[in-house]
Amino acid sequence: MKRQPLLLALLLSPTLVFAAEGMWTLDHPPLAQMRKELGTAPDAALLTKLMRGSARIAGGCSASFVSPEGLVLTNHHCVAECVEQLSTASQDRLRDGFLAKNRAEEANCPAMEVNRLESITDVTPQVRAATKGLSGEAFSNAFNAIKAKLAADCVGSDSKTQRCDVVDLYRGGQYKLYQYHRFQDVRLAFAPEQAIANFGGDPDNFNFPRYDLDMALIRVYENGQPAVVKDYLPFRREGAAAGEAVYVTGHPGATQRSLTVAQLQALRNHAIPARLLNMAEYRGRLAQYSRSGTEQARMANSELFYLENGFKVYKGELDALNDPQLFAAKQAEEAALRRFVASRPALAKTHGQAWAAIEQALARYEPLRTLDDQLAHGKAFNSQLFQIARTLVRGAVERSKPNEQRLPEFAEAGLPTLEAELFSAAPIYPEFEKIKLGFSLEKMRELLGADAPLVKRVLGKQSPDQLAAQWIDGSKLADVALRRQLWNGGEAAVRQSQDPFIQLALSLDDEARALRKRVERELDAVVQKNAELIAQARFAMKGDSVYPDATFTLRLSYGRVEGWQEGEQAVPPFTTLGGTFERATGAEPFALPASWLNARSRLNPAQPFNLSSSNDIIGGNSGSPMVNARGEVVGLVFDGNIHSIGGAFAYDPRLNRTVAVHAGAIAETLDKVYDAQALLKELLGR
Amino acid sequence: MKRQPLLLALLLSPTLVFAAEGMWTLDHPPLAQMRKELGTAPDAALLTKLMRGSARIAGGCSASFVSPEGLVLTNHHCVAECVEQLSTASQDRLRDGFLAKNRAEEANCPAMEVNRLESITDVTPQVRAATKGLSGEAFSNAFNAIKAKLAADCVGSDSKTQRCDVVDLYRGGQYKLYQYHRFQDVRLAFAPEQAIANFGGDPDNFNFPRYDLDMALIRVYENGQPAVVKDYLPFRREGAAAGEAVYVTGHPGATQRSLTVAQLQALRNHAIPARLLNMAEYRGRLAQYSRSGTEQARMANSELFYLENGFKVYKGELDALNDPQLFAAKQAEEAALRRFVASRPALAKTHGQAWAAIEQALARYEPLRTLDDQLAHGKAFNSQLFQIARTLVRGAVERSKPNEQRLPEFAEAGLPTLEAELFSAAPIYPEFEKIKLGFSLEKMRELLGADAPLVKRVLGKQSPDQLAAQWIDGSKLADVALRRQLWNGGEAAVRQSQDPFIQLALSLDDEARALRKRVERELDAVVQKNAELIAQARFAMKGDSVYPDATFTLRLSYGRVEGWQEGEQAVPPFTTLGGTFERATGAEPFALPASWLNARSRLNPAQPFNLSSSNDIIGGNSGSPMVNARGEVVGLVFDGNIHSIGGAFAYDPRLNRTVAVHAGAIAETLDKVYDAQALLKELLGR
Repeated sequence: MKRQPLLLALLLSPTLVFAAEGMWTLDHPPLAQMRKELGTAPDAALLTKLMRGSARIAGGCSASFVSPEGLVLTNHHCVAECVEQLSTASQDRLRDGFLAKNRAEEANCPAMEVNRLESITDVTPQVRAATKGLSGEAFSNAFNAIKAKLAADCVGSDSKTQRCDVVDLYRGGQYKLYQYHRFQDVRLAFAPEQAIANFGGDPDNFNFPRYDLDMALIRVYENGQPAVVKDYLPFRREGAAAGEAVYVTGHPGATQRSLTVAQLQALRNHAIPARLLNMAEYRGRLAQYSRSGTEQARMANSELFYLENGFKVYKGELDALNDPQLFAAKQAEEAALRRFVASRPALAKTHGQAWAAIEQALARYEPLRTLDDQLAHGKAFNSQLFQIARTLVRGAVERSKPNEQRLPEFAEAGLPTLEAELFSAAPIYPEFEKIKLGFSLEKMRELLGADAPLVKRVLGKQSPDQLAAQWIDGSKLADVALRRQLWNGGEAAVRQSQDPFIQLALSLDDEARALRKRVERELDAVVQKNAELIAQARFAMKGDSVYPDATFTLRLSYGRVEGWQEGEQAVPPFTTLGGTFERATGAEPFALPASWLNARSRLNPAQPFNLSSSNDIIGGNSGSPMVNARGEVVGLVFDGNIHSIGGAFAYDPRLNRTVAVHAGAIAETLDKVYDAQALLKELLGR
Repeated sequence: MKRQPLLLALLLSPTLVFAAEGMWTLDHPPLAQMRKELGTAPDAALLTKLMRGSARIAGGCSASFVSPEGLVLTNHHCVAECVEQLSTASQDRLRDGFLAKNRAEEANCPAMEVNRLESITDVTPQVRAATKGLSGEAFSNAFNAIKAKLAADCVGSDSKTQRCDVVDLYRGGQYKLYQYHRFQDVRLAFAPEQAIANFGGDPDNFNFPRYDLDMALIRVYENGQPAVVKDYLPFRREGAAAGEAVYVTGHPGATQRSLTVAQLQALRNHAIPARLLNMAEYRGRLAQYSRSGTEQARMANSELFYLENGFKVYKGELDALNDPQLFAAKQAEEAALRRFVASRPALAKTHGQAWAAIEQALARYEPLRTLDDQLAHGKAFNSQLFQIARTLVRGAVERSKPNEQRLPEFAEAGLPTLEAELFSAAPIYPEFEKIKLGFSLEKMRELLGADAPLVKRVLGKQSPDQLAAQWIDGSKLADVALRRQLWNGGEAAVRQSQDPFIQLALSLDDEARALRKRVERELDAVVQKNAELIAQARFAMKGDSVYPDATFTLRLSYGRVEGWQEGEQAVPPFTTLGGTFERATGAEPFALPASWLNARSRLNPAQPFNLSSSNDIIGGNSGSPMVNARGEVVGLVFDGNIHSIGGAFAYDPRLNRTVAVHAGAIAETLDKVYDAQALLKELLGR
């Protein structure tokens, strides 16, 4: 796809916010601007309804409550891991789909958790007070401690249903406490065949026109019963109309719109290329492995899907950063802010050095990056079994410390989620783990060099593949009962374990922790402190007309159902069910499932299928409801167009588009393809 | 490996040339500078001897004549393709090595050609006169025509033994006619096992300390007899000594030291990342394919080797271009040259716009790059069978034209080489071709998009893998006799062929040629014309103290046997045979062949094995002789250290090192590991 140059002026103007730009927090929506640009804006009741009707899936997706009995609408690709786990060699649920005929058949998704935002509280003063005057490790420790304390106090004794996170907004400009209701009993009600959920596969990912039924229905349970949900979003079968004003509520994962130029440069020159090259080669390995057999393809399916999706995202980000106009605009924007600071002596004194401090910290970090990735982040050991082992080894030590002194991922507030993952009964395939681990060990050797002390110590006289096979064949950590035993047994049990991954994690832990501490001290703490200063400078210059970078917390974006102009071609905002059959070739990934081929004559070919809108979203928004001005679900967000990827750094109103499944196509296919009458009735409130 | 920052000052000084820097043409060696820096310099007789004793292997390597009976010393990796072709499923010559017990056993390498430079003639005036006042397509046509004419006139009627190329030096600053003696009957005499030739494999590639016997002996024949070679380079068993002054003669392929900043930016932001990402994924595919069986590994071996080598090179180049100090130095160097031009009104008028012209042409090319790669360069169709088909289709048309109007690759002077490749009996493995082609078709779809007209037309309703299998199963072009028949049958025969690859090449040819013409007109001609202007400006500023970028033509570089300082660690210039056994792990690629394990007790452990020197080389120099001041072979160049990769853009005297096999190790192992007494005697002149 061709990227059109951003108009430089768009980014240069310091206060102008464009139509549809922004992922706004629900306690700070730009109401006046929405009224002006959209002709409408949500009132307080609708805002509350949107907040309570929206959901977060802890693994990285969004969703909405769509019935009073706990029914939740999200994307197929947000539940694919569960669908895969429900599959066996003899029954492939990804291939065949899943429909619970009744509630008793709704199938548990062991690793899933659904969160609903209940309240937002400003805790900026508490965080500022705790870190005041500190730097380096003292800053990091105090920062982590206050966040752990605030979260733990908020959760109180009810960690089964309460979840609290301290959210860093505006990169330190504000800290807010987000309190969630937690649903840990999540069951699958419906998922279509992957062939239609992901029709067009990787080639069509981030493309539009598009023809995907990327939907799934799950249900949250409490005490063994469907959860009672008061504030759900009604589903509107008529769906979205061209030009209609629409809101998207969801949990965009991360944007980098307020990074400094030095941070963007580090991404462009180092971090993203390194990641992309690794992903590309790993992708080649998995794609070829998948070709070695049906079962191999099934085992690798979900890993390959996320990998290809991530590859396209990072590639799009690299392209955006290599767009000279975008980069020049970022430089100009930073220069304007720095001039503003320089022109106010008091501000200049306290805030003027922030940019240089970040740049210097990044330069010092650069020689550490590869070892940090491989050792501290554990990329050298790409096996679920190693992740489990590291969690057990560290958990034993950390849980014996006071909450506020722990590594943040072991803070009390996060333990229920961590335990759900650690004790997940999801299958681990030894053959596949060997492929993953062998590759990552080989890359460790390549990236650090065969003579690096870590490499020599880990590999010894063995090849990466030999070692991977030996460890995986020798480990018993696929056994959930053993994990529980080691988790409950604490440090003594862990230290006595002869499991090769436990021994590996133990042998690496001192060095890995020391490196992590060093990076926190020399890079993270410096960036956090100085990003706070830059955020304050930006508030001083722009007031509160700005929205914070995405943080996988609930945001509202507004826009219209509209296409865009791609070069000389106008792209209309809708595709139809009929168009799907024209696009189908019969060959993967453009092969339709039998259910669709059989239902063709019954389907309305003119029914809108997918649509595009000008809402500003990013990865993490998958599964978000698209609602009309009355708060009715008219679409299900599952993607953005190719230009939306550059939205990580800047929103381009001419090109950036959200892609959604039309509500009418959901109803039409539940009815005529899947005969899912009970679920359809529930969805339509009948 | 850590890259140390270049000293900015080194590149900023406009006239200073550093110790050991430069790949100098043999008709313009920097004698005074060598005397000053090295304490010695070759006299005219030695220069002639070096020219005539050096050889080029047409596929992209260097070599030297080392006996009066046509014996040629080069690298194992320069003959690996031949060794692979001599292998069968039952006898793997790459794995087991090859030793001809006598001359009758020397085995023909059908696709190899050895060239010896005989003379250099300046033809700048003729080229300038032919293109004067022209631009765009007229410039391209005239430029190609004069080069074809000069080469054809030089070859005359003896194309069997004569080869002539017009060489573009200083990117258009000079044009010279290089006349070669051509040897097309090349036979393999000795190649060790790949496990020791490439000991350490990809992990150790471009690394030092190093332990590789990357050598091979081939012999050129004329009229069925070993060629009589008067000017060969004597082999010195004692080899190179620490600190000794050494020359390297060879054929460095390409450097980019005189590119403009805009050209470097296009490499850094677009060309290199695109290539690297493709290579990384392809590498993953081939690596996993190789793991599916011994025979698969054998089929993919050579492709994977070149791929991994190329990947490391481009990755090193990208890292160099992302080094802010190197890039700043390039910007400063260009700025200084442009200031020099601007300060001279006459020069400014004729030459001042050259940089902007190149930059604009590159910007216009950028949206065409992907289609140019996929269609015009044929990357979408990565199969030898497609390459053969395109050569047959185009050859039929082009050979019917007058020499000077042909596409340059079909000019008379190049036909013998082209025919040797086209009619090579080297095996083509259908199973492996399907992997290659399926992958490249898939990438075409990804890079151009599933809706691109070319993609829809080529793929139709099939998947890339389906189509690749169908074409390869349906093609008969693996049959050399059929190729000859189509080549001799001309356009009529080609147009009648029902071969799927011939039909594919025919169906693409108009569009592919039109795109090529467009790129030649809009980019290549503009770059060539303006690079000529920049070269002239550089001559005006710096006189003849400069050397031209590498062009895969004979060059002399000088230096000393020396190590370097890697951060806090001094790297000594020698490794030993004994050290090899310490580095060996028994696991690939650090597993020694049985012959070495058996010979261990007989080998002198202190014998120097590999060495590093400060000669300035680049890819293409593989196989170059390293000679002492008396012109004796004291080493065999096979690599550079990791810093040498950045030498594509700038030579850093502190870090950039050549890596060679020590002559003593060659003699020692021919004697004690391989018992190759006849060859050893011949090599030692006994």
